[in-house]
Amino acid sequence: MTLSEAVEKLNELEKASYALNHAQSILYVDGDTVAPKNSWKGRGKALAYLGELTYKQLVNPETGEVLETILQHRGEVDEVTFRRAEVMKESYDDLHVLPMEEYVAWQELTNEASNVWHDAKPKSDWNLFAPYLEKMIAGRRRYASLKNPDKPAYDVLLDEYEKGASMEALDPFFLTLRSELSPLIREVAVREKPVPAFMKGPWPVDRQRIFSEKIMALEGIDPMNCTLGETEHPFTDGNNKWDVRITTHYYEEDPFFSMYSVIHEGGHALYELDVRDDLQFTCLSGGVTMGVHESQSRFYENLIGRSRAFCTPLLKIMKEVFPDRMEGVTEDDLYSAVNLSKPSLIRTEADELTYSLHVMIRYELEKAMISGDLKVTDIPGEWNRLYKEVLGVDVPDDRRGCLQDSHWSFGGMGYFPSYALGSAYGVQMLRRMEKETDVWGAVEKGDLSPVTAWLTENVHQYGSLKKPHDLLSAAMGGPLDAAVYTDYLKNKFSSLYGL
Amino acid sequence: MTLSEAVEKLNELEKASYALNHAQSILYVDGDTVAPKNSWKGRGKALAYLGELTYKQLVNPETGEVLETILQHRGEVDEVTFRRAEVMKESYDDLHVLPMEEYVAWQELTNEASNVWHDAKPKSDWNLFAPYLEKMIAGRRRYASLKNPDKPAYDVLLDEYEKGASMEALDPFFLTLRSELSPLIREVAVREKPVPAFMKGPWPVDRQRIFSEKIMALEGIDPMNCTLGETEHPFTDGNNKWDVRITTHYYEEDPFFSMYSVIHEGGHALYELDVRDDLQFTCLSGGVTMGVHESQSRFYENLIGRSRAFCTPLLKIMKEVFPDRMEGVTEDDLYSAVNLSKPSLIRTEADELTYSLHVMIRYELEKAMISGDLKVTDIPGEWNRLYKEVLGVDVPDDRRGCLQDSHWSFGGMGYFPSYALGSAYGVQMLRRMEKETDVWGAVEKGDLSPVTAWLTENVHQYGSLKKPHDLLSAAMGGPLDAAVYTDYLKNKFSSLYGL
Repeated sequence: MTLSEAVEKLNELEKASYALNHAQSILYVDGDTVAPKNSWKGRGKALAYLGELTYKQLVNPETGEVLETILQHRGEVDEVTFRRAEVMKESYDDLHVLPMEEYVAWQELTNEASNVWHDAKPKSDWNLFAPYLEKMIAGRRRYASLKNPDKPAYDVLLDEYEKGASMEALDPFFLTLRSELSPLIREVAVREKPVPAFMKGPWPVDRQRIFSEKIMALEGIDPMNCTLGETEHPFTDGNNKWDVRITTHYYEEDPFFSMYSVIHEGGHALYELDVRDDLQFTCLSGGVTMGVHESQSRFYENLIGRSRAFCTPLLKIMKEVFPDRMEGVTEDDLYSAVNLSKPSLIRTEADELTYSLHVMIRYELEKAMISGDLKVTDIPGEWNRLYKEVLGVDVPDDRRGCLQDSHWSFGGMGYFPSYALGSAYGVQMLRRMEKETDVWGAVEKGDLSPVTAWLTENVHQYGSLKKPHDLLSAAMGGPLDAAVYTDYLKNKFSSLYGL
Repeated sequence: MTLSEAVEKLNELEKASYALNHAQSILYVDGDTVAPKNSWKGRGKALAYLGELTYKQLVNPETGEVLETILQHRGEVDEVTFRRAEVMKESYDDLHVLPMEEYVAWQELTNEASNVWHDAKPKSDWNLFAPYLEKMIAGRRRYASLKNPDKPAYDVLLDEYEKGASMEALDPFFLTLRSELSPLIREVAVREKPVPAFMKGPWPVDRQRIFSEKIMALEGIDPMNCTLGETEHPFTDGNNKWDVRITTHYYEEDPFFSMYSVIHEGGHALYELDVRDDLQFTCLSGGVTMGVHESQSRFYENLIGRSRAFCTPLLKIMKEVFPDRMEGVTEDDLYSAVNLSKPSLIRTEADELTYSLHVMIRYELEKAMISGDLKVTDIPGEWNRLYKEVLGVDVPDDRRGCLQDSHWSFGGMGYFPSYALGSAYGVQMLRRMEKETDVWGAVEKGDLSPVTAWLTENVHQYGSLKKPHDLLSAAMGGPLDAAVYTDYLKNKFSSLYGL
């Protein structure tokens, strides 16, 4: 196969791959947002067939040859084409590990497990979900051993979500978070502030919908390219820079759950919306790792969205949308209200200070369950023990304990650390950004464009073009340093709680 | 190829075909409802690829052999399998007409034309849309000549939507409608009734959304299997009996546009929702022709929804949802209000009496544009001339004239007559239904289940299992008779207008 034949084939492959991914992604989004409940039957049939096609397209000797041919001619193809082959080779290697029957069986297992989890969670019924988790752990261990028998299984899985991540690097990272943040969390807990009166509901959902629109506009999201849906669990789905979907969930008693969901998912969205045009419709058009993706979503959610400066435009909007509720509330009141910190049960509702320790608990549990040290039946007990030990809270049931997150239900072991890594990456980016632009002056004026411009320049535009390590080193101005993150949290919360 | 091999292959083919159709249908629905406006680029790429796959799957020598093998063994396979092969053969023959590149180019053209039409309509800019329509007319003429060079092109196109339809049968059909209805329309116009005061807006959209839910419940539509979306132009899309989507459009100044859209699309939906289980996920699971489909939607919309009996439950619901607006309004007031007749500009807003003449005008224009007698640049003038001549109204601009309907924007020339045929089929079915069941007693009680049971028994359950002609003859108790339809309209509107 000549190089130009290979490039031609790569283009065809990407065309097919784009189309199949686009279709599958819209089926999922539709299924989660507006589809009738019973539509799962037909959707399952369609997705199974499209999944089979995806596998067949990628895993065959010709594709292997195409990718090898390009990868052997580094100097002779442009940077984008070379990197496309490189990234596709990663997917090829990932898929190639399992024979098609096992791949399809894995899809079916996670599909079923996900349905069972949706049943088990409201019932707090770990025993219902446990047999599926057991099979998925076995499946992930087998996958890891096939992919790289020389590495610990959990390292193989971590690498799926965060290229290069390993327990060797994450153990000290989480240790620093725990040792630096635990004393502060204890001190803050002692000085617990009451929930201010203005935050009590109800906050009518139709007003919250208008609030969402204004928040998206403030964040600089163009509704021509990105729309908002409603789901139980908020998510982002990006097809290309002209087609991104985010979702939120409204609670009548709390406008901030939805608002911070919108800002968070909006951060994911902006990453996808700002990728260079020439990377669109290729495998480089999306974010490069889950950690980098989370660095962007959590940047907007916390570093910007929970900053003092942001409370100026936020209060203005809230006074427009909820005039009767916000009478007499000051920017400082709001800043304090959106930064109440208290050890709690639910990760997605946790404040910025305690959040990473929720993640750390999951990391410890996953290490043990994948190594085989922790049996599935022992997870609830171990979960509850860690919540007590690390956060000092008693877990009343598995619904609010080890059944709360969806990740294990789709076999996503290894995903969680991305949230903590992303938070830490973000702070290091912020420190560089602050040197180069007047972040807070702009944010206070309700102008997030300098923030997004900096992130676009340093992160978004590249999609998956740069390797994660190169992208992050440049954007953060150096290697990961957990202390920058913990210093940020210590300063912010010491000041908020007068410590 | 043995018969059992052929049946096995047919099953595989249907599996692929179901999945590809399902994906394409959801992409269209999503695109029209909640997708960001700019998402058309990526959707176009995905649809083009899926279209190509559909084509390749169906148009190849093996598929031809599979279908021929089954069709040559009529007595040896069950009725459903035989009919599946027969219906798939029709699609095979339809697709086979064009080489793949032409087929794909056609898909791209209609995709683009549809976008342009969406732009051109609000601007009333015929010149923007005209070049696309010109290409589509050429495309349809070429298609017709390849498919059957011995028939007039427009007959070939009519047959696509209504099996067996031809100008020879439709010319006298429309002539009867025109000659029988025109005098009545003129008499009614002289006795024009004012719009009653209670109908004046605003009718808040959030209340109208609740109204829609109640109307769907009254019609007997299970929201577990069918959801309602919002689009500029209402439509129905069915994947299987557990996944149907209908849409509506809300106008603040008029609750009846949306309400009758919901009932109309709900009629389409019920057809798809009531098809037999054993036909699901096969090519027989949908309605058999557009005319039969329209007979169902217009049955619920007009024959039921605009009947005197229906005004009893309707008024009850409206008093619940719009208590302040409906004070003092009687069932007779409502019956008169939802049956105001007046020659008007917009087909989808036309009353039951004048509706078919809107269709007739399009039929005449399509005949002329497909035969080559009418140039695209002359369509606006000819449109306006016919509206004046047939309905006596002056068309102020193309937005409310020849740009109003979406059909030409997707190349759907030949589709319109189905609306008038469906209306006529429906009345003939109603006459039989009235003999077998107490239609009006049940409707007055707000119970539409006997209506739906009769239609399910005689029409819905079969999907595309019966041939259209057989299905219709049985359901109508004889051949199409335009006079039954015009008699119905003459009786109803003479009585409403005291003639």
